[in-house]
Amino acid sequence: MRPIEHKDATPEVRAVFDDIKATRKVEDVNNFWKHLANEPRMLEHVWGSLKAIMGPGALDPLTKELIYVAISITNNCDYCMASHTAGARAKGMTEAQLNELYAVVGLANMTNRLANAYRVPVDEAFKTDQ
Amino acid sequence: MRPIEHKDATPEVRAVFDDIKATRKVEDVNNFWKHLANEPRMLEHVWGSLKAIMGPGALDPLTKELIYVAISITNNCDYCMASHTAGARAKGMTEAQLNELYAVVGLANMTNRLANAYRVPVDEAFKTDQ
Amino acid sequence: MRPIEHKDATPEVRAVFDDIKATRKVEDVNNFWKHLANEPRMLEHVWGSLKAIMGPGALDPLTKELIYVAISITNNCDYCMASHTAGARAKGMTEAQLNELYAVVGLANMTNRLANAYRVPVDEAFKTDQ
Amino acid sequence: MRPIEHKDATPEVRAVFDDIKATRKVEDVNNFWKHLANEPRMLEHVWGSLKAIMGPGALDPLTKELIYVAISITNNCDYCMASHTAGARAKGMTEAQLNELYAVVGLANMTNRLANAYRVPVDEAFKTDQ
Amino acid sequence: MRPIEHKDATPEVRAVFDDIKATRKVEDVNNFWKHLANEPRMLEHVWGSLKAIMGPGALDPLTKELIYVAISITNNCDYCMASHTAGARAKGMTEAQLNELYAVVGLANMTNRLANAYRVPVDEAFKTDQ
Amino acid sequence: MRPIEHKDATPEVRAVFDDIKATRKVEDVNNFWKHLANEPRMLEHVWGSLKAIMGPGALDPLTKELIYVAISITNNCDYCMASHTAGARAKGMTEAQLNELYAVVGLANMTNRLANAYRVPVDEAFKTDQ
Repeated sequence: MRPIEHKDATPEVRAVFDDIKATRKVEDVNNFWKHLANEPRMLEHVWGSLKAIMGPGALDPLTKELIYVAISITNNCDYCMASHTAGARAKGMTEAQLNELYAVVGLANMTNRLANAYRVPVDEAFKTDQ
Repeated sequence: MRPIEHKDATPEVRAVFDDIKATRKVEDVNNFWKHLANEPRMLEHVWGSLKAIMGPGALDPLTKELIYVAISITNNCDYCMASHTAGARAKGMTEAQLNELYAVVGLANMTNRLANAYRVPVDEAFKTDQ
Repeated sequence: MRPIEHKDATPEVRAVFDDIKATRKVEDVNNFWKHLANEPRMLEHVWGSLKAIMGPGALDPLTKELIYVAISITNNCDYCMASHTAGARAKGMTEAQLNELYAVVGLANMTNRLANAYRVPVDEAFKTDQ
Repeated sequence: MRPIEHKDATPEVRAVFDDIKATRKVEDVNNFWKHLANEPRMLEHVWGSLKAIMGPGALDPLTKELIYVAISITNNCDYCMASHTAGARAKGMTEAQLNELYAVVGLANMTNRLANAYRVPVDEAFKTDQ
Repeated sequence: MRPIEHKDATPEVRAVFDDIKATRKVEDVNNFWKHLANEPRMLEHVWGSLKAIMGPGALDPLTKELIYVAISITNNCDYCMASHTAGARAKGMTEAQLNELYAVVGLANMTNRLANAYRVPVDEAFKTDQ
Repeated sequence: MRPIEHKDATPEVRAVFDDIKATRKVEDVNNFWKHLANEPRMLEHVWGSLKAIMGPGALDPLTKELIYVAISITNNCDYCMASHTAGARAKGMTEAQLNELYAVVGLANMTNRLANAYRVPVDEAFKTDQ
């Protein structure tokens, strides 16, 4: 499946590419979008939902990039680790923050399995919190 | 595997329980620690590493709780979702933030697979960023 | 662990290789089988079960290849994505179908986590259906 | 996080609920949508993308439900297994098909790990196919 | 999907049930097999492969049960954790061994993600070992 | 994130490196530790817990390496597969054992999903065992 460049794209795909470029103030969209353009319906929906959620909102954009990196490590997605680490750096992430993020990812993946292994029942205090 | 209460614990386990209670200013440790106490070496190491990493550091404690929740959803760990959602709420997380967090978790799990499916090559720009 | 070629194989392994070649009408088995031949018991059992299930049955063979691709993407198995995409193409899969498959894989991985995150209770209507 | 009923919903959420009901010809939306309504942006985007992809397209709707079930089993999402099994039954899936689907899911999860374990290199024939 | 009891089973399914009972010296097969009997081809293949691999071999049976428990925790399969923990206990596993197993499972799930996060290149010494 | 060599390390990191080298009787630490040294708190905690758990204990060290390999395959961590396979070989693992281990990993990943798919209820006998 080949990536689709702007010049070869349908008007529908070009409109999404142009919106990505305008929103992010970049000269070209990255490889993810060029590949996803093979399925124009998903290109539109994925971009639409990322645009709605990943910008300023209840959580600040850097926090959301960090969460994205954490999940991408957990799921072992090389491309996503690279792209969202770059995104987090562009939003001000320091090396100390990235190292601490990796630590949290490691710890969470450990304690998730320990909680499963011991079949730990949910504390009453947590239930009332939810 | 039964949970171990403070009164039934060895001095070694009690010392960890007491440190958890003093650090977190709580009257009792939660169920996770009572179960993990069946393996005192891990009790000590897991607590030691969480104490070192999850407090104030390069990232603020709320951000780290949110990352923990995101990974626990991705890994489908009910106990961890409950305990770290409670932790995040105690640190000030709003319902709007929790909803937005869920949205990011959903999106990341989707785009992780789309990037894999299309075998998207890492952009040159991301490589120089790393 | 080296792949085992037909000429170097034991009679037991050769018999499986020959059955794969005859069943699939191919001149040589693919790399997966040559590696799995290091454990002849599994070679025989894996081939036996794939032969029984992946051919014509309650579901048509193309549908089963598509399901295989979907799981391989979810599990991030490069080899399996490559081999079963080739298998699906050989059974008539179009590029439009592959793109739509990727879309479904992305969506399912997203909504799986959203359902977990919100701890959505199973609808009564679904229970009676099962 | 409570589910949101139609009568308590904002006009924005009601519009999505009404579109789900009209599209699917059902009297009420299922629990998934009522919970997701806590994040109206995702409600709109998830529904929009499912509506675009899961209906008639390059793949028939039943095939797409089966793929959804397969991924939900792999990811261990109880709600999604229940809802998409019901969806597949409503589209004509037989018990024999469901059993064969389970078989494929089991086999794919096995061979995914065997391919990883043996680090099987991708066959040249598969590369030219892609 | 209902479990199938011996008295309601086809001769083909009964033969597998009888072989399980004779091999394991038990009076009835456990629930897993009764459910899997809905797909007789998989019943036969799964039992055949477990019988071939899980008994005495290159690794002792207890070690193989422990590995099964470790993977079942990692994949979050409650039934499999319960059945293989019972199997390991029947083969002599002590509580101290189970606790240490849980520790290894936690650590491996942590370091797996740390190795991914840091994109650690494989040491030359490991390459020559493989 | 660059690996940190002994000569460039802080005294804190050097102390951990020296302990790894003395404990394992090796001339240099492997790449994992050099990368993890970017987060000295985790370097210390991860090493401390591995040192406590992976040596002689309730389970023999080879068994624990095998479990590590099994989880690393399940999680698809190339580095961890390479390093712990080397570790297992150094502790006496034979090729026959490695092949049988791969078989168990494949089978467990299959039956984990079959148990989920059929929603198999836990047998009473297993409950009393736990």
